[in-house]
Amino acid sequence: MFTEKVVKRVVRELRGGKISSNRAFRRLKNLPYETLSAARLDHHRSIRKGFPEAVYAPGKSFEQLEKIVLAMAHAHKCFLITRLEEFQFLRLKESVAGLKFVPEGRLAYYRKSAPFRKRRGTVAVITAGTADIPVAEEASATLELMDIQVKKFFDCGVAGLHRLFDQLRELQSAKAIICIAGMEGALPSVLAGLVDRPIVAVPASTGYGASFEGIAPLLTMLNSCAPGVAVVNIDNGYGAACFVRQMLGKSQ
Amino acid sequence: MFTEKVVKRVVRELRGGKISSNRAFRRLKNLPYETLSAARLDHHRSIRKGFPEAVYAPGKSFEQLEKIVLAMAHAHKCFLITRLEEFQFLRLKESVAGLKFVPEGRLAYYRKSAPFRKRRGTVAVITAGTADIPVAEEASATLELMDIQVKKFFDCGVAGLHRLFDQLRELQSAKAIICIAGMEGALPSVLAGLVDRPIVAVPASTGYGASFEGIAPLLTMLNSCAPGVAVVNIDNGYGAACFVRQMLGKSQ
Amino acid sequence: MFTEKVVKRVVRELRGGKISSNRAFRRLKNLPYETLSAARLDHHRSIRKGFPEAVYAPGKSFEQLEKIVLAMAHAHKCFLITRLEEFQFLRLKESVAGLKFVPEGRLAYYRKSAPFRKRRGTVAVITAGTADIPVAEEASATLELMDIQVKKFFDCGVAGLHRLFDQLRELQSAKAIICIAGMEGALPSVLAGLVDRPIVAVPASTGYGASFEGIAPLLTMLNSCAPGVAVVNIDNGYGAACFVRQMLGKSQ
Amino acid sequence: MFTEKVVKRVVRELRGGKISSNRAFRRLKNLPYETLSAARLDHHRSIRKGFPEAVYAPGKSFEQLEKIVLAMAHAHKCFLITRLEEFQFLRLKESVAGLKFVPEGRLAYYRKSAPFRKRRGTVAVITAGTADIPVAEEASATLELMDIQVKKFFDCGVAGLHRLFDQLRELQSAKAIICIAGMEGALPSVLAGLVDRPIVAVPASTGYGASFEGIAPLLTMLNSCAPGVAVVNIDNGYGAACFVRQMLGKSQ
Amino acid sequence: MFTEKVVKRVVRELRGGKISSNRAFRRLKNLPYETLSAARLDHHRSIRKGFPEAVYAPGKSFEQLEKIVLAMAHAHKCFLITRLEEFQFLRLKESVAGLKFVPEGRLAYYRKSAPFRKRRGTVAVITAGTADIPVAEEASATLELMDIQVKKFFDCGVAGLHRLFDQLRELQSAKAIICIAGMEGALPSVLAGLVDRPIVAVPASTGYGASFEGIAPLLTMLNSCAPGVAVVNIDNGYGAACFVRQMLGKSQ
Amino acid sequence: MFTEKVVKRVVRELRGGKISSNRAFRRLKNLPYETLSAARLDHHRSIRKGFPEAVYAPGKSFEQLEKIVLAMAHAHKCFLITRLEEFQFLRLKESVAGLKFVPEGRLAYYRKSAPFRKRRGTVAVITAGTADIPVAEEASATLELMDIQVKKFFDCGVAGLHRLFDQLRELQSAKAIICIAGMEGALPSVLAGLVDRPIVAVPASTGYGASFEGIAPLLTMLNSCAPGVAVVNIDNGYGAACFVRQMLGKSQ
Amino acid sequence: MFTEKVVKRVVRELRGGKISSNRAFRRLKNLPYETLSAARLDHHRSIRKGFPEAVYAPGKSFEQLEKIVLAMAHAHKCFLITRLEEFQFLRLKESVAGLKFVPEGRLAYYRKSAPFRKRRGTVAVITAGTADIPVAEEASATLELMDIQVKKFFDCGVAGLHRLFDQLRELQSAKAIICIAGMEGALPSVLAGLVDRPIVAVPASTGYGASFEGIAPLLTMLNSCAPGVAVVNIDNGYGAACFVRQMLGKSQ
Amino acid sequence: MFTEKVVKRVVRELRGGKISSNRAFRRLKNLPYETLSAARLDHHRSIRKGFPEAVYAPGKSFEQLEKIVLAMAHAHKCFLITRLEEFQFLRLKESVAGLKFVPEGRLAYYRKSAPFRKRRGTVAVITAGTADIPVAEEASATLELMDIQVKKFFDCGVAGLHRLFDQLRELQSAKAIICIAGMEGALPSVLAGLVDRPIVAVPASTGYGASFEGIAPLLTMLNSCAPGVAVVNIDNGYGAACFVRQMLGKSQ
Repeated sequence: MFTEKVVKRVVRELRGGKISSNRAFRRLKNLPYETLSAARLDHHRSIRKGFPEAVYAPGKSFEQLEKIVLAMAHAHKCFLITRLEEFQFLRLKESVAGLKFVPEGRLAYYRKSAPFRKRRGTVAVITAGTADIPVAEEASATLELMDIQVKKFFDCGVAGLHRLFDQLRELQSAKAIICIAGMEGALPSVLAGLVDRPIVAVPASTGYGASFEGIAPLLTMLNSCAPGVAVVNIDNGYGAACFVRQMLGKSQ
Repeated sequence: MFTEKVVKRVVRELRGGKISSNRAFRRLKNLPYETLSAARLDHHRSIRKGFPEAVYAPGKSFEQLEKIVLAMAHAHKCFLITRLEEFQFLRLKESVAGLKFVPEGRLAYYRKSAPFRKRRGTVAVITAGTADIPVAEEASATLELMDIQVKKFFDCGVAGLHRLFDQLRELQSAKAIICIAGMEGALPSVLAGLVDRPIVAVPASTGYGASFEGIAPLLTMLNSCAPGVAVVNIDNGYGAACFVRQMLGKSQ
Repeated sequence: MFTEKVVKRVVRELRGGKISSNRAFRRLKNLPYETLSAARLDHHRSIRKGFPEAVYAPGKSFEQLEKIVLAMAHAHKCFLITRLEEFQFLRLKESVAGLKFVPEGRLAYYRKSAPFRKRRGTVAVITAGTADIPVAEEASATLELMDIQVKKFFDCGVAGLHRLFDQLRELQSAKAIICIAGMEGALPSVLAGLVDRPIVAVPASTGYGASFEGIAPLLTMLNSCAPGVAVVNIDNGYGAACFVRQMLGKSQ
Repeated sequence: MFTEKVVKRVVRELRGGKISSNRAFRRLKNLPYETLSAARLDHHRSIRKGFPEAVYAPGKSFEQLEKIVLAMAHAHKCFLITRLEEFQFLRLKESVAGLKFVPEGRLAYYRKSAPFRKRRGTVAVITAGTADIPVAEEASATLELMDIQVKKFFDCGVAGLHRLFDQLRELQSAKAIICIAGMEGALPSVLAGLVDRPIVAVPASTGYGASFEGIAPLLTMLNSCAPGVAVVNIDNGYGAACFVRQMLGKSQ
Repeated sequence: MFTEKVVKRVVRELRGGKISSNRAFRRLKNLPYETLSAARLDHHRSIRKGFPEAVYAPGKSFEQLEKIVLAMAHAHKCFLITRLEEFQFLRLKESVAGLKFVPEGRLAYYRKSAPFRKRRGTVAVITAGTADIPVAEEASATLELMDIQVKKFFDCGVAGLHRLFDQLRELQSAKAIICIAGMEGALPSVLAGLVDRPIVAVPASTGYGASFEGIAPLLTMLNSCAPGVAVVNIDNGYGAACFVRQMLGKSQ
Repeated sequence: MFTEKVVKRVVRELRGGKISSNRAFRRLKNLPYETLSAARLDHHRSIRKGFPEAVYAPGKSFEQLEKIVLAMAHAHKCFLITRLEEFQFLRLKESVAGLKFVPEGRLAYYRKSAPFRKRRGTVAVITAGTADIPVAEEASATLELMDIQVKKFFDCGVAGLHRLFDQLRELQSAKAIICIAGMEGALPSVLAGLVDRPIVAVPASTGYGASFEGIAPLLTMLNSCAPGVAVVNIDNGYGAACFVRQMLGKSQ
Repeated sequence: MFTEKVVKRVVRELRGGKISSNRAFRRLKNLPYETLSAARLDHHRSIRKGFPEAVYAPGKSFEQLEKIVLAMAHAHKCFLITRLEEFQFLRLKESVAGLKFVPEGRLAYYRKSAPFRKRRGTVAVITAGTADIPVAEEASATLELMDIQVKKFFDCGVAGLHRLFDQLRELQSAKAIICIAGMEGALPSVLAGLVDRPIVAVPASTGYGASFEGIAPLLTMLNSCAPGVAVVNIDNGYGAACFVRQMLGKSQ
Repeated sequence: MFTEKVVKRVVRELRGGKISSNRAFRRLKNLPYETLSAARLDHHRSIRKGFPEAVYAPGKSFEQLEKIVLAMAHAHKCFLITRLEEFQFLRLKESVAGLKFVPEGRLAYYRKSAPFRKRRGTVAVITAGTADIPVAEEASATLELMDIQVKKFFDCGVAGLHRLFDQLRELQSAKAIICIAGMEGALPSVLAGLVDRPIVAVPASTGYGASFEGIAPLLTMLNSCAPGVAVVNIDNGYGAACFVRQMLGKSQ
């Protein structure tokens, strides 16, 4: 993002007569944009390295979706479409060969490159109940597209702590934990008191009444009395996966 | 509350000439009120049996408070004043001999009768943190005024489950559990998965930020995924004690 | 849940040469899990004694539901499925023989064991309006599956107190009262001033406008000025029944 | 509000030469304003008949308050200052002779005219608890300044219905009822099922926790299942009195 | 509600031998209930005089609705069913002859008695926009069933005050004003500054975004700076009509 | 709105005998209304000059919509119908010739007058994401009906600032900027730090979970730390366009 | 913000040997920053032309405040400090000569330059009540520091529309209107129906109960049914002034 | 957390006669607790490695605080007390030698061990405004107590992006970024689009009006359109630091 070297070289070349004034000007005048494009290029680079861009399907017409997905398929080696209905996928697939659907995660992905290359180390994805599974599958599919190995632990809510305790050893050995819970959302707090891995908590909109579409577990997670919990948006499995990817770094 | 016997007797006496029409009328016309007074009498009776009426101090002027407390001391054998500041107590005490202050529970009580008579069985009062103790002490003092034995378990929050597990045997043997928690308020859910006693959950206004003065633990408790939890108002230690008293019944 | 006896016996047997080191180790190393499994076993035991596990149907695909219900039918003698649509039931029934539907309570139940055995004493289930009946039926069906006798009092809202007063004698004789109310939700407060039974209040999402899907009655019930009321989640008839079951204890 | 008579008279007088063109113009050009002033004049007239303008004290500096009150005392025969602290009153009194303080209603009033003239018929002002009394006194003082007779019924909350039932006959004979309740605010609903008088409900900010400074009783009152209840702002005793005054009309 | 006359007559008749002890007992033993039924009977009386009982249709199955409506048609001379869909009405009509539908008010009514008898004086029903009309029609139909004359003023919102000013004379001459507004709901405040009639404000759930299904106009109306406004629940045209009926009294 | 001249002329004419008393009276008595009608006339004038009246379609029956649209087409040269479904448009079009549909903006418009006359200067309409486009198109279509030139910048959210930076020069040269953003709604804040044009921010209901149907971007925009941002209702593209029109003035 | 000219000149001067490579590098290497500083410089320029930077005082220690204000006084010709307590001002004044306090607007300002130069045209600042005046004075003082003439209209709330109507001619002739209202906040809606000037609405936190510290007027203003209203944060007089300044442009 | 080795050794020693049955029993019977204590011990270990336990001061009496802090100083080598007032610190210091106060972070810490040992790599702590600094200092002090190097970037809000751009290179090279913002809280979103480091966002309660004590930035951060952001509670600098510590792992 920093242009010192570029500026120095242009100055040197101009001074040395290697480039014309015009050419110097053309290069220099775009510097701010190149600088900022750097963000974009860097973004591209991180995508190339396993960070898939995502298209959020709801609220887009099929025509918009198709146009965006075609452009993505042209520009990127790997991307995903979140909150996609199966019927939308079936129509999209006709235009975009190679699109795959993950029904349990409500998403489709596109991946031009070689077969998945599993890295060492895993990320644990744990849910309190079975109704939280779609969010967990969204997180898992996203992680796997980023070549991160996932181990799933579903239905380990605090109502039966033994279900959780049986898994502690494996959870403790994960690089990070994505923890999804609806209703009262107490699982991340409890887990954070038992393992010392970073826990990315995802409130789920499962539940009814005073869970208020995910507000109850959101507040629970934000107020976790055990340190080591950070929170993403309600139902945002994709966002949790991206944050974990960021945490693990490029060199993982 | 039901007046059949009274009506029958009046009819019989009137028929038998034992009472005049006027007197019959006077007695019968008040029947609805007597019926309803029955509720009051019954209420008195339950008070007499250990259920203390409570005066909520905030928002009352000292003059109002004093007048009410004097009337209470005249009419009742036992009552308490909740959310009382010490300086208020010190002034009240001058007018009402025999008033006792429980500073850690922010309440005063008045008890004309004989020394406390402990019943068999105990109620457990458990808090997640130390900041929840005033609410717990309000509940405990109320229970004790009702001759119910209390066992306190403070600072057993889910951040360190071992603190909770050490107490499970005793908690399991309690007749009921009053469980106070602020911040994310996950303790009742976790506890309900571990013991099979009825848990009366009290959200505490401790915490900051997204605990929103007790809304976060309130929602957590209402959404408890483990069955066996019912909830009272934020910081309402007195209410939890009364509900438990009701549960245990007169004959406890 | 407590392992003293087990530890003592293993130590004794090992000392006495009755068991090998390996066997001692294998038994002892699992102790923490056995301890925790104890919770599970105890849970099972309580289920066996009348406490049905519940499956919450919304947000589960039919495939998930079917898999869970089959597993439940294999493991448990009695369980129920709440918030089940009739069309879901009709499909489930094909896989799970013996499943019964309670349309007015929007639930299905499975009960392998002998015919219902009514206990002495009853729990009153009372609603303010007719629109609250589905929640009441969910509570009633749950109680009955736990062999607890139910007496229903529907449409006794505070708009016509005489409807309530006619029932007071019977309400007063119940072991506990589950009280469901939507709109302003004042019934539990009023009832708590009239009877001295513990009242488990269930806010209902009936009503419109400023009832905000049950928030209005929820707040009303939490703020009940008459002591003796505790609250469960909006529309949570099942939870109210479980809490009452817990209150009554195993030995009821 | 309608200026027909004025216009007709000016036209007549101008035609008859009784007033000059200039004077006619001056009077007529202000007609739209006079028309609108009519509202003000009419307002004045209603004030004179018992409808006092009110100054809301909070958020005003003493200087602003003093200036406004002096202007009011000059222009009006009767007005009141609501939510006034006693120390503010004591300073104001130095500038404005004849100002009276009603400490229990947290207001001061000014009344140049003859002694109060009680009308036939009364308005009942009823509170659920003692903490609601300041709001009730604000309503009562406002009504009395409007020459409306008040009968107060304090501490009649639904926790002890007999306290309410004892008063029903008198409440039924009132022209209207102002009903103030904090905490769960169920009193207006219950009352509306028992009497057929119009009930103006005032939610009070008394209570704590989930009463949310008056939101709980506000929602309760808006959702009243018994018809015949309308609601004003939290703690707005003055507004309830004004609405009742409007209901009773000028000719009362 | 008061049973003096009944008690006196029974006593007299018993005394005079006109009725047997048994009969006297049977009549008297029900007195508390009769007393309370008095509310019901009085309710009936008021219905007969123009106060229709209402059935709220949403959340009731057709079977429940039909059963209730048949019972109502048997017991009452006049009642209405609010928030009724046309298709529900068409089915109900087959069972209940004489049911009439008011599509613009989304309600049906039943009226056994003679043709409507218009009283002197009218109630104004005014809306801010055209989308508020269904609520206005619900209020109007309810008023008319109570033999109260209605004058409708639709689409007079504050965006074009002249539309309002043209109607002021007629509004001023109404006995009371029901004022319905969605979006920002400013109409009642503005109207209250212009006329001195009591205004029953009904927030409407019309609007979008930050009107939050009627919360915005509800808050606006509760905070009206002009005195003389009281508020009922969002969209509650029926409730506004009942309150006005109560205000006008039986003798209107 | 000011009637001085009219009053003076009537006085003069009456004085000079040019008009009769009766006629003078008739004209003068309506002055308040004429005054207020002036607002209406002025309103009409502004409409005629490019300010289209709008009909908000949701919550209106087709019959109401048709009646209103026919009346509008008769009275106005130009108006629009917002939030219109295509199927509604197709039916409306049969009655109202010349109605045009803008599907991407979910609106129809009617314009009797000559072809659009573009003014100098443009208003920029910028969105953070593609899901915000319908709101942007509503704003754009409204502006164009008011003869204001629009330049659209879609999908410039802060996640990739370079997309925004590429447009800064053009944004800076716009007369005003309408900026639509959902999710976290940070675009207006960021933009306001970069350009010195007035920014009318429109929160969009796009997003999910904790965006709460537009509350999150609404709060973000209201709290913008960069000065120069004002906010309209969630999804209110029409309102943003009208405010901009007002800002630019008639003489633009 | 665009650096073409700078780049071109540096290239030219370097080419022409007028500046050394080093100097060229030093200037060019900062170009991205200069580019971005351009925003800052432009900001400065706009400040110089009347746009004062503001320091928000609350939440800053006196030491922080003093340090910031000294730096500001060194760098800027004009700035202001909002929400400043008088005692803070008195201490600040000791360090920063030339600081002026505007007590009614709760702000201080610093202005090195020549006496105020009033521009043609004015901005109207109007309040609904007297309690809204501090916000109005904050807006007015900010506008005046930007050399924009202000005309104040205080206490023109909709409860007495004539107070508003008297001012319409002057309001209509303003370049823009800043309209502050608490309680129900209806003034901007009403005003927008009467004048065709752009109205920047500021909700005020004045009021009590259901005004919820400004939420009620905020919602009212966002839902204004009359077009031409945009809203800034609660009590944000400074922000309203800045937006208006942006609207009027540099060339005003 | 797993006790295999302990169990094996006890079994071995008992078998080998090295320990008595009694001793074996005593050690084994505590195994579940030791197991769970393991969490505590592990916790201790992590503390020793840089993870300080924290005492939250508000809501604790001085006596409670003193007792807890003395116990902590006895048991731990390092801990901190958050949200501590200076006067509380001054009293605590008398009992607990070696307590240090960090006034800008509103916390005190205790550290028995050797001087701080800086690790390689740093964590960036960045704030949007100066009012957010106390939260940033709480995070920084916590990180430094955990031997993590901190680089602070204060006052880099999005209103002047150049302030942020100047820091990008350094921010990009941090191991993680803690980003604190109040008001609209847009900084984390913008930052996440520019750097590819994990960003732990802390909403600050700075701001006023519609920032609602931190709700606005909380929602903004949860809805961040740029991936790579996770959120902790409002003002929770300590929690952000702990989460980052967890992320970096023990081996950092």
